[in-house]
Amino acid sequence: MHVYDRLARLGIALPPATPPSAAYQPFAWIGSLVFLSGHTAKVNGRPWPGRLGQDMVTADGQRAARQVAIDLLGTLQAAIGDLRRVTRLVKLTALVCSTESFTEQHLVTDGASRLFLEVFGPQGAHARSACGVVQIPRGSCLEMELIAEIGTAPLQARG
Amino acid sequence: MHVYDRLARLGIALPPATPPSAAYQPFAWIGSLVFLSGHTAKVNGRPWPGRLGQDMVTADGQRAARQVAIDLLGTLQAAIGDLRRVTRLVKLTALVCSTESFTEQHLVTDGASRLFLEVFGPQGAHARSACGVVQIPRGSCLEMELIAEIGTAPLQARG
Amino acid sequence: MHVYDRLARLGIALPPATPPSAAYQPFAWIGSLVFLSGHTAKVNGRPWPGRLGQDMVTADGQRAARQVAIDLLGTLQAAIGDLRRVTRLVKLTALVCSTESFTEQHLVTDGASRLFLEVFGPQGAHARSACGVVQIPRGSCLEMELIAEIGTAPLQARG
Repeated sequence: MHVYDRLARLGIALPPATPPSAAYQPFAWIGSLVFLSGHTAKVNGRPWPGRLGQDMVTADGQRAARQVAIDLLGTLQAAIGDLRRVTRLVKLTALVCSTESFTEQHLVTDGASRLFLEVFGPQGAHARSACGVVQIPRGSCLEMELIAEIGTAPLQARG
Repeated sequence: MHVYDRLARLGIALPPATPPSAAYQPFAWIGSLVFLSGHTAKVNGRPWPGRLGQDMVTADGQRAARQVAIDLLGTLQAAIGDLRRVTRLVKLTALVCSTESFTEQHLVTDGASRLFLEVFGPQGAHARSACGVVQIPRGSCLEMELIAEIGTAPLQARG
Repeated sequence: MHVYDRLARLGIALPPATPPSAAYQPFAWIGSLVFLSGHTAKVNGRPWPGRLGQDMVTADGQRAARQVAIDLLGTLQAAIGDLRRVTRLVKLTALVCSTESFTEQHLVTDGASRLFLEVFGPQGAHARSACGVVQIPRGSCLEMELIAEIGTAPLQARG
C-alpha cells in the first residue's frame, strides 16, 4: 500500500509546511538527506503547553508527539513534493519538556515513531534519541526534529 | 558581495579555530558535510556565565549567540581554508541554559541565525532546533553546533 | 595495531547490539554514515540511575560514559559486521542528567571520547557536543548518540 493510501486510511490530512517561528528554514535538503528543523507541538496553531510529570501524563505526551509527527510529514511533503520519494526515515530526535522525576520520554516519543511506522512501513523505521529538557521555545511541551533519506530514482506512477 | 566583504563590512575579524576543552576535535569533515562541535559562549576567552530567565534576558542571549556564531565561522574557516567554499549552511542546534519559565530560546538563537544570513546571504539559510537545557559545560550560558555543506568545485578567484 | 587487538588489550568484550527500549531501531545506515540511536547508561542490564552534581561525581559519570561507549561499539559492530570498516568516527552527542550547578559535562563525556581514541587511534577522533539535561529515559544518568563513517572499500584481511 502506498504512503498516501495509508494516510487516507488513518484519516490524516497533511498540513502545509510549518512556518518557522524565527530566522530559519523549515528544512534543508542536502544530497539525499533532508534535515527538518525542530517542530514544536501545537494545538489549534498555538503552542501546546505543558510539562511531562507536572501537568501532562505519558499518554498526553504521546498525543502531542503524534501531532508533531504529522506536522513533520507536512513539512517533508512540502520540501520534496511527494512522500513516495522517501526511501527511509533516518533519525528522530525528541526534546520533551520534563520535570526532574519524569522518565518516560521514550514512551512519549513512541507517539511519533509508531505513526511513522504506520505510514511508511519498514521504510519508516529510524534511529532515535529522546531526552527531558527544561523548556521548549514558546512554552511548547515537545519538540522533534527529523532526518529523512530521499531517493533520486524517478517516482513510480501513483495508484 | 563575497562573504569576506560582508564580514569586513560588519567589522568582524574571525578568530582562529576554537580549541576543544576536552578529548575531541573542533570539527569532522566527511564527504561534503562538515560537522562542527558544540561551541560554548565565551567572553574574553572564558565561559560566558548565566541562565536565561534568571540573570540574563533575551537580548543578552542574542549577543551571546552572535558571538558563538562568529566562533563557529572561525572554526569553519580553519577547517576548510576559505569560507567561500561553503555552498550552504545546513543545520544549527542551540542549547540554551534556561530556567523552567524561560520560553524564548528561538529568539536567543536568532542572534546566530541572523548573523549567518548577513554573512552568507541565501546560502546562510539553515534548518534549526533550539531548546532550554539545565546546564552547559563550564557553566556557559549557551552552546551551539553546526553542520555546513562544502562544495567540491574549485574556488573562484577572490575579489 | 588493529581495532580488535586494541579491544583485546583493553580487556573489552563487545556486547551485542543494544535492543531499543521502544518503537525505533538501534541504528540507521545511510550511504557511508551510520547513525546510532541514543544509548543510555546501564548497569547489569538495567538503567544506571543518578544525577551528576547530586548523587554522582564526575568520575562516576566518566565510568558511565565509558560503558555507553562500549555499548555503542557493540551496536556499531552488529550494524556493519566488522569495526575495521570504520573509516572515521564523526560526531558524538552526550546528554548528561545534571543538576543546575553541575558544569563538567565535557569531562564526563571524555570517558567515552578517550575510549574511542584508545580503540581507533586517530580514526577515533570526533566532533562532539555535551550538555546537561533534566532527565533521561528510564531514569538513566547519561545518554549518548554517535555518527560513524563506514568505508565502502573491501576489508583488508585480519591479522
